Amino acid sequence: MSRFRVTYRIFAGSLAEARARAEGIALEQTVEIPRDVVPAGYIEDTILGQIEEIGREDEGQFRATLSYSPDSAGPEFTQFVNVVFGNSSIQRGLRVIGIDPGEAILAPNLRPRFGIDGLRRLTGRAQGGLIAPVIKPQGLGADALAEISYRCALAGADIVKEDHGITDQQMAPFRERVEKIAASVARAAEETGRRALYFPSVAGHPWEIHDNLRFARDAGADGFLIMPGLLGFGLMHAIANDPDLSLPVMSHPSFLGPYVLSPETGLDHGVMFGTLQRLAGADISVFPNVGGRFGFTVAQCQSIAAACREPRGPGLPIMPSPGGGMSVERAGEMARMYGPNVVYLLGGSLLRLGAQIGEGIAEMRRAVDAADAA
Amino acid sequence: MSRFRVTYRIFAGSLAEARARAEGIALEQTVEIPRDVVPAGYIEDTILGQIEEIGREDEGQFRATLSYSPDSAGPEFTQFVNVVFGNSSIQRGLRVIGIDPGEAILAPNLRPRFGIDGLRRLTGRAQGGLIAPVIKPQGLGADALAEISYRCALAGADIVKEDHGITDQQMAPFRERVEKIAASVARAAEETGRRALYFPSVAGHPWEIHDNLRFARDAGADGFLIMPGLLGFGLMHAIANDPDLSLPVMSHPSFLGPYVLSPETGLDHGVMFGTLQRLAGADISVFPNVGGRFGFTVAQCQSIAAACREPRGPGLPIMPSPGGGMSVERAGEMARMYGPNVVYLLGGSLLRLGAQIGEGIAEMRRAVDAADAA
Repeated sequence: MSRFRVTYRIFAGSLAEARARAEGIALEQTVEIPRDVVPAGYIEDTILGQIEEIGREDEGQFRATLSYSPDSAGPEFTQFVNVVFGNSSIQRGLRVIGIDPGEAILAPNLRPRFGIDGLRRLTGRAQGGLIAPVIKPQGLGADALAEISYRCALAGADIVKEDHGITDQQMAPFRERVEKIAASVARAAEETGRRALYFPSVAGHPWEIHDNLRFARDAGADGFLIMPGLLGFGLMHAIANDPDLSLPVMSHPSFLGPYVLSPETGLDHGVMFGTLQRLAGADISVFPNVGGRFGFTVAQCQSIAAACREPRGPGLPIMPSPGGGMSVERAGEMARMYGPNVVYLLGGSLLRLGAQIGEGIAEMRRAVDAADAA
Repeated sequence: MSRFRVTYRIFAGSLAEARARAEGIALEQTVEIPRDVVPAGYIEDTILGQIEEIGREDEGQFRATLSYSPDSAGPEFTQFVNVVFGNSSIQRGLRVIGIDPGEAILAPNLRPRFGIDGLRRLTGRAQGGLIAPVIKPQGLGADALAEISYRCALAGADIVKEDHGITDQQMAPFRERVEKIAASVARAAEETGRRALYFPSVAGHPWEIHDNLRFARDAGADGFLIMPGLLGFGLMHAIANDPDLSLPVMSHPSFLGPYVLSPETGLDHGVMFGTLQRLAGADISVFPNVGGRFGFTVAQCQSIAAACREPRGPGLPIMPSPGGGMSVERAGEMARMYGPNVVYLLGGSLLRLGAQIGEGIAEMRRAVDAADAA
């Protein structure tokens, strides 16, 4: 059975030191016992991590690829992530720069099942960037949120997405809100003949989440927004792979910042917001756009987009979704940077337009179409 | 209703810049729309974050305390963490250095319900450090893991804790393993008259976790080990607060490293491994011990222990649990550093003793007792 591979950048003073650290990682991520007490046979031969390649990358930086058995991960995606980087995430000078799941891990995880092509089919937007206004602010009631959703859907939004900070607060409880927004989006579809997809934010007590999602599906939700940094990549994987739900998933980066911000720890931007998201079943990966308030660079954003869309996998190519700093004025720049297979989040500045929010959506649609055609 | 407060360290060039960033955080963590479109009334007055205090802390470092409404968090612990540091975790030069939940958040979250006193009652260990051998390695079958557990329990272990990397793999599936280890620990208790507590590692498909935990309780589990970095603080909170389970919880730091490693992002060590764990319901907080393989400093470990045991809360004082680098030789040093209210994890080096593992436990017990008495 094919092993999965994780490539780490190791900050070390010499190749010998890097190799010793790689040997430590092989133990740490699997058996977590000293090398001399690893039982011979299956555990030593299969379970123990193996160094496949190691070499110098740059001054003080080495690159080591380790392989692990699918047996170590078992059936749970959570445990797969645990093997990739659980305890080793606490080591200084160690960063995950690549994950190759191999066939054994990938086979039962062939999600996303929608990906770029599926999203184009579901939205009916055959080409060009998708536009996804974010429904907010937190504090509004369900009726007010539904009214904003209606105007956005009427104006041609492709996806009406709830803000990640709107969960199950008393101002707009999950089930009441989902019913009202789904109805408002359906009403807009009757008027225009084209349906915006509605993605509510996954919420509820942990023992009630699955029921909440089935409720949302029955009420007319077309997909889900989820924060894997807070709810776990395993939960996102479960939702994306649930045959009963069978709806696309949009991943939100809340609480994931520290994994990418320091170059000497965590995971590379493309691994966190691309590879890992695809493996965990996201069809859309939201990340902080360059020029917004989070300071990601052009190169980091491009590496994320590339990792989301890499044709060779893992799984289907998905849509990157830069959030923050998007405007009509920047549509040309963004279209040149990201190309057409992208979901543009439109955030709070849209609310400046009040009841004319639909005009803002329509204007952005024209700007994106013009830029995509250029 | 009392607001909860979060104190951030802001890296900025001037107080004016720090204040502007604090105003940005107040928006980011709540309404996430520009200041000029925040609706007047309830949303502006209550939902919008408020700067309570701001001042200079050191060269280029400022300290800002913001308050948020319990309405923003709503009933879910996940959303509470989202308000504390969701999107702002992606900002550079920003670190959470304190959380004061206030009465409104704390009242429904008065966990841990066990804490230090509860653990002493459950273990029957009235004084001195608790000893918790970690049952491993991954790859052994359920019978072999049960045999190790039996020897540890027989020798006087206070808590028999599964390794965090043993979840639901086919080598030792969750339910089979839990039944066998629980039975072996019960058998040891019959022989010694004193029962070691058995903490299995929370595992299973997300929709099955709750059933798995009830199964474990019925089989004789005395508590649970959980990795909130992978499964979410909301899940740990749900388990700790489940009236049907009503068992203590031990938190494991897997995948949490990047939150503490860079001093200019994430959360302070004491906040992550103390305050937040208490709020989320942990009774024991595992963290990497000084002198082990993770490089935490004495000061960082002491700040964690202090945050776990701070008498003024939040909730009951809990036991810090340093893992890694513990040995008979270091028992004196560790007892002086941590005092008696601590759970010592004993890891892989115990396995060197093979069938004599119980002698290692007994020797450690004597060393800890001697050090505590000194």
